[in-house]
Amino acid sequence: MKNLNTLHEILEARFDLYRKENSFTPAELYEPVFYTLQNGGKRIRPVLLLMGLNLFREEIESGISTALAVEVFHNFTLLHDDIMDHSLQRRNKPTVHNKWGVNTAILSGDAMMIMAYHFLDKSPAEFLSSLMKVFNKAALEVCEGQQLDMNFENLSSVTEADYLEMIRLKTSVLLAASLQLGSIIGSADLEDQENIYQFGLNLGLAFQLQDDYLDTYGDQKVFGKRIGNDILTNKKTFLLVKAHEISSGELKEKLDFWIRAENFDESKKIKEVTSVYDQLNIADLARKKISHFHRLSLEKLSKIKVSDDRKKLLSDLAGQLIIRNN
Amino acid sequence: MKNLNTLHEILEARFDLYRKENSFTPAELYEPVFYTLQNGGKRIRPVLLLMGLNLFREEIESGISTALAVEVFHNFTLLHDDIMDHSLQRRNKPTVHNKWGVNTAILSGDAMMIMAYHFLDKSPAEFLSSLMKVFNKAALEVCEGQQLDMNFENLSSVTEADYLEMIRLKTSVLLAASLQLGSIIGSADLEDQENIYQFGLNLGLAFQLQDDYLDTYGDQKVFGKRIGNDILTNKKTFLLVKAHEISSGELKEKLDFWIRAENFDESKKIKEVTSVYDQLNIADLARKKISHFHRLSLEKLSKIKVSDDRKKLLSDLAGQLIIRNN
Repeated sequence: MKNLNTLHEILEARFDLYRKENSFTPAELYEPVFYTLQNGGKRIRPVLLLMGLNLFREEIESGISTALAVEVFHNFTLLHDDIMDHSLQRRNKPTVHNKWGVNTAILSGDAMMIMAYHFLDKSPAEFLSSLMKVFNKAALEVCEGQQLDMNFENLSSVTEADYLEMIRLKTSVLLAASLQLGSIIGSADLEDQENIYQFGLNLGLAFQLQDDYLDTYGDQKVFGKRIGNDILTNKKTFLLVKAHEISSGELKEKLDFWIRAENFDESKKIKEVTSVYDQLNIADLARKKISHFHRLSLEKLSKIKVSDDRKKLLSDLAGQLIIRNN
Repeated sequence: MKNLNTLHEILEARFDLYRKENSFTPAELYEPVFYTLQNGGKRIRPVLLLMGLNLFREEIESGISTALAVEVFHNFTLLHDDIMDHSLQRRNKPTVHNKWGVNTAILSGDAMMIMAYHFLDKSPAEFLSSLMKVFNKAALEVCEGQQLDMNFENLSSVTEADYLEMIRLKTSVLLAASLQLGSIIGSADLEDQENIYQFGLNLGLAFQLQDDYLDTYGDQKVFGKRIGNDILTNKKTFLLVKAHEISSGELKEKLDFWIRAENFDESKKIKEVTSVYDQLNIADLARKKISHFHRLSLEKLSKIKVSDDRKKLLSDLAGQLIIRNN
């Protein structure tokens, strides 16, 4: 079983090789593409894909191109999402539209999506049609998730179910599909494909909910991002959605006051909204929900018809991603 | 041999069926997609694809999904190009970004590109990998062409060769690839595939040059668009590029004056620039170039190893698209 670092290095080397072996003109189109791909990200989706393959087969070379396809597609979504969200920075670098303008960002993103399909086409031919179906379905669902997320900005209230559906589409399906794509190349049967997909889907939900949780309750040094940013921007996270749902009377008024406030002291807003969350036990609800999806994901993993020994890397990864008591 | 109208109707019916048989949510994402697809366009690319198939095989059903893929991809490029070009109208309807905003236009366009690959995946499985290669190459080249076109806006001079390369990428390769994709499904050999591609490529160049020509020298009633619009917007067409290249002295100064002019009487600018073109015999140069590419396209068609009888529809189409003495 390959470890994470090895897989990561293999992927970086392939991107470099691809860039060296081909000529990419005009530079105005392709420079932002490689700028985006060299983002120092965790490459979690292609790594999951190769792990999904490695669960069923020792050699993983046959999955590399499909893994690159998934990573390029994911980076394309980041590039276009950054335009839509007016984000100026990503991982401490200017976003593409900030650096080169919106037109270049749109077009370079388009080129990246086509590149993703170029890599997908280099998958083992016998699986190409199955891979395309899973990939296309997930890709379209990611767009649907992004649209729901944008719709939420204009809604006064969002239910927990709506929220979970949005993060399922926007974040989880691509993680799930990555694992399934790997399993397809590993010749997994349909039942195992479905279980590995569900493992990824539930892990993705747990991971996104944890991200929401850590934005308010994390340790700034560990989390890496400013604590309370979601509160400052009124982002409709699980915490806010849930607080809206269960609050009433004075607490609801206090929450609404801070959401509507236009001029405020940032630290004070974070402190006050967190105090509403605390009084509603939101942290506890979030932790329970995270555990729920984490447990579901491990159940699905347990059903896959390979030895526990082979599953260890995936269950360890699930454990690393979900830090239950943070 | 199927005629154009029949093919057109088949395609429209398939789009309708696709929409009816699937549920598309959220509506905010998909409404602009179908708005864009129902644009009343000529469906020239999918029709070419089916003609390319029909050249080699009587039944064309096997090419329908691939034809839809090409049409959806083309419409995606129009949607995103309209954002980049800040176009407010297309075919007398508001453009998507004008009607729903830039974010929706970006995301709906992304969804359309994925849909294009969804249709491509429904192509006959035996040809899928070959079709993907041709499709991906053309798709990426279309992006390169759009980037070159945007680059031209910031360049003071563009050579004829640069201009032809830009329209080759932006317009011609997708027409050429459509024909090749059809021929692949028709089991054409590589030589015939290359010749039908080159037929489409040269026809596309002739067609785009004719479009440039007609914008200044066409009959408004026949052309359908306002005559002189390219002159008013200083669009770098073949006429302007060529006039820049061969003018000198007083004529060059006059041309530059009108290009730099910020406040002007529109009719006067059209009249004066056209008069510069006339003195440089630009219309004649354009007509010769159009004939050159038209002739080249027919030469390529003649080399394809099927009976002249089967080629008639394509050579007639070429004749219809290129009206030599207009």
